[in-house]
Amino acid sequence: MTNHDLIRPLIEKNDSKIVLLVADGLGGLPPTPGGSTELETARTPHLDAAARDGVCGLSIPIRLGITPGSGPGHLGLFGYDPLQYNIGRGILEALGINFPVGPKDVAARGNFCSIDDHGRIVDRRAGRPSTERCVQMCQKMQSIRIPGVEVFVEPVREHRFVVVLRGEDLSDQINDTDPQIVGHEPLKALGRDAPSQRAAELFNQFISEAGRILKDEAPTNMVTLRGFARYPRIETMEEVYGLRAVAIAVYPMYKGLARLVGMTVAETGSTLKEQIETLQALWKEYDFFFLHYKYTDSTGEDGNFAAKVQMIEALDQVIPAIRDLEPDVFMVTGDHSTPSKMKSHSWHPVPTLLLAENCRTDNVQAFSESACLFGGLGQFLAKDLMIMAMAHAGRLSKYGA
Amino acid sequence: MTNHDLIRPLIEKNDSKIVLLVADGLGGLPPTPGGSTELETARTPHLDAAARDGVCGLSIPIRLGITPGSGPGHLGLFGYDPLQYNIGRGILEALGINFPVGPKDVAARGNFCSIDDHGRIVDRRAGRPSTERCVQMCQKMQSIRIPGVEVFVEPVREHRFVVVLRGEDLSDQINDTDPQIVGHEPLKALGRDAPSQRAAELFNQFISEAGRILKDEAPTNMVTLRGFARYPRIETMEEVYGLRAVAIAVYPMYKGLARLVGMTVAETGSTLKEQIETLQALWKEYDFFFLHYKYTDSTGEDGNFAAKVQMIEALDQVIPAIRDLEPDVFMVTGDHSTPSKMKSHSWHPVPTLLLAENCRTDNVQAFSESACLFGGLGQFLAKDLMIMAMAHAGRLSKYGA
Repeated sequence: MTNHDLIRPLIEKNDSKIVLLVADGLGGLPPTPGGSTELETARTPHLDAAARDGVCGLSIPIRLGITPGSGPGHLGLFGYDPLQYNIGRGILEALGINFPVGPKDVAARGNFCSIDDHGRIVDRRAGRPSTERCVQMCQKMQSIRIPGVEVFVEPVREHRFVVVLRGEDLSDQINDTDPQIVGHEPLKALGRDAPSQRAAELFNQFISEAGRILKDEAPTNMVTLRGFARYPRIETMEEVYGLRAVAIAVYPMYKGLARLVGMTVAETGSTLKEQIETLQALWKEYDFFFLHYKYTDSTGEDGNFAAKVQMIEALDQVIPAIRDLEPDVFMVTGDHSTPSKMKSHSWHPVPTLLLAENCRTDNVQAFSESACLFGGLGQFLAKDLMIMAMAHAGRLSKYGA
Repeated sequence: MTNHDLIRPLIEKNDSKIVLLVADGLGGLPPTPGGSTELETARTPHLDAAARDGVCGLSIPIRLGITPGSGPGHLGLFGYDPLQYNIGRGILEALGINFPVGPKDVAARGNFCSIDDHGRIVDRRAGRPSTERCVQMCQKMQSIRIPGVEVFVEPVREHRFVVVLRGEDLSDQINDTDPQIVGHEPLKALGRDAPSQRAAELFNQFISEAGRILKDEAPTNMVTLRGFARYPRIETMEEVYGLRAVAIAVYPMYKGLARLVGMTVAETGSTLKEQIETLQALWKEYDFFFLHYKYTDSTGEDGNFAAKVQMIEALDQVIPAIRDLEPDVFMVTGDHSTPSKMKSHSWHPVPTLLLAENCRTDNVQAFSESACLFGGLGQFLAKDLMIMAMAHAGRLSKYGA
């Protein structure tokens, strides 16, 4: 039985407030074995105090050993089983550039490529054009019209862009048109069922039009499309949990992921301080607040241990302002680890704390990977965190009599 | 694969004795964060000694964050997946008053309500009549006869009673007849499939007869029925585990739950001392002994921290008598937590100890929530405890060659 099916009949409403603070890529690694991680190195008196007052644990984003992308990492934290709710690449790419995808959309990632006179691909990334050129070429393609659907073309960066077709009865069971090797022509898009065939045919028309428009624009004289994805039908957090949820995020991807699960996306400034001001301003209007902090991940991706430490310390400074609002449940976690040593997302479990009136405190004295290992939440699947939040918020009645 | 399917081919029989002592609602919370729970406050030298000699852990009754009722809480401890075996409300209510429900029964919870001259409900609980009046009204309804089925009507308390129809080919996919709001007539019972339609028609006859009999008995002049439930078909513990199992419980609900899984229910006095005497008297006759102790839950429900501490200390006193019998496996746990701070069941994991010749002892020095967190059993699902018991009893052969 899924968590959602289990709790649906148990949901109760009350006035409680739940705050989920996601420090993206929070977990880390020591630069050398036996040393301290970024979080252990950072001076974090306020997070440590929250860890002492609350209950801690380590969140396993997907399963042991599985490194998540941002999509599944966040879906898990929102309580949506990331193995059940699969957000296609095209949709994620669209969310990442803040394109307002909706239920009638099929999105695809586009690549500019270079073809020779026989139509064979000679460079799958068109020599990595500048982002400026990417924007110009996308503007050209924005003139493409296809009867029966709306067409959207938006630049991402370098050779990458997004195409969205909006229409009735389209689906996404379509092969990538990128043959993955040079010397071949782009593949035809083919659909595996009737609505996918319809969409594939429309995408083929788009590619053909794009080829005509870009004919004289070598090296960006052709496109391939992949990661075809329909906007997923996901129950909203209001439907699942009875929570009016709002996202206070700066980066488009996370706003988009929040929108996917029905959260309102707040207008907010780009600094932590402004995010907290937004939180304060919206406090009365919502039940659930998702705060997203990007820089623990981006510094980790950069491989900059010292910068990640700094970003963690900056985050620590806003913890008192959040606690001053007296949320009924306050959680701090990450969607995955991003050890600066690895310069990438990783599978390592993520330090997590939950603070609530009826949490069973443990002996954890600091917010860190090594301390959270001995916390009362144990090592748990990220998708179970929302159930814990709902329980501690008094929003779940008992199961069975 | 379910636990039962997994172990069925592995079951071996021997002369071992297994004791499961369930201290209902055992787990607790400190009155203020960072303090001691009821179990940590209680002086429990014998439980502490057992924890030192055995292996400890924390039992998660259903899933993280899910608060169980007594039914699912106990089914889990008996090794029956509480998400798979769902005991309907009507059956639980019948078990709770010690009504001997059986495989041909469909049970429903009944409410006395008040209707006006137009048949519309004006009070869904008939002004909460005295239990004495409830008994009288039920006696009147006991005269109801319906061709083809046996009819049982038993009082619970105040406005609540139980109706059981016993017959062939009846089922329970039937809507509640309580419209949940005043100003409406009671709803007709309708069945979702043929055997449920048959049962619904018979229940409608019952309601109609009850209305006739209660006509002049305002405010208890009508009834509504809900929580229709068939007696579940559950394999017995003898079938699943090859164990001759006996329940030594005082309260009807727990006797009923034990009967559901095929346990013999022992005649016993109502004190712990008498329960232990019963255990001693039956020692040779059974393989598995379920001892139920209610007062850790009821004092928790009352919000009486000191009384719960006392009840735990009283339980501690009988531990030596149980150990003197030299059970091969001796387990102490609870079906859920009932923190006196919350005055209710809760989701918090439950301290658990298992004592057996071949248990791998851990470093736990006391039987408490905080110590069990570091026990060798870790945090585990309640439904897995019986497999551990069977293993430690030498009653499971190896899986695969």
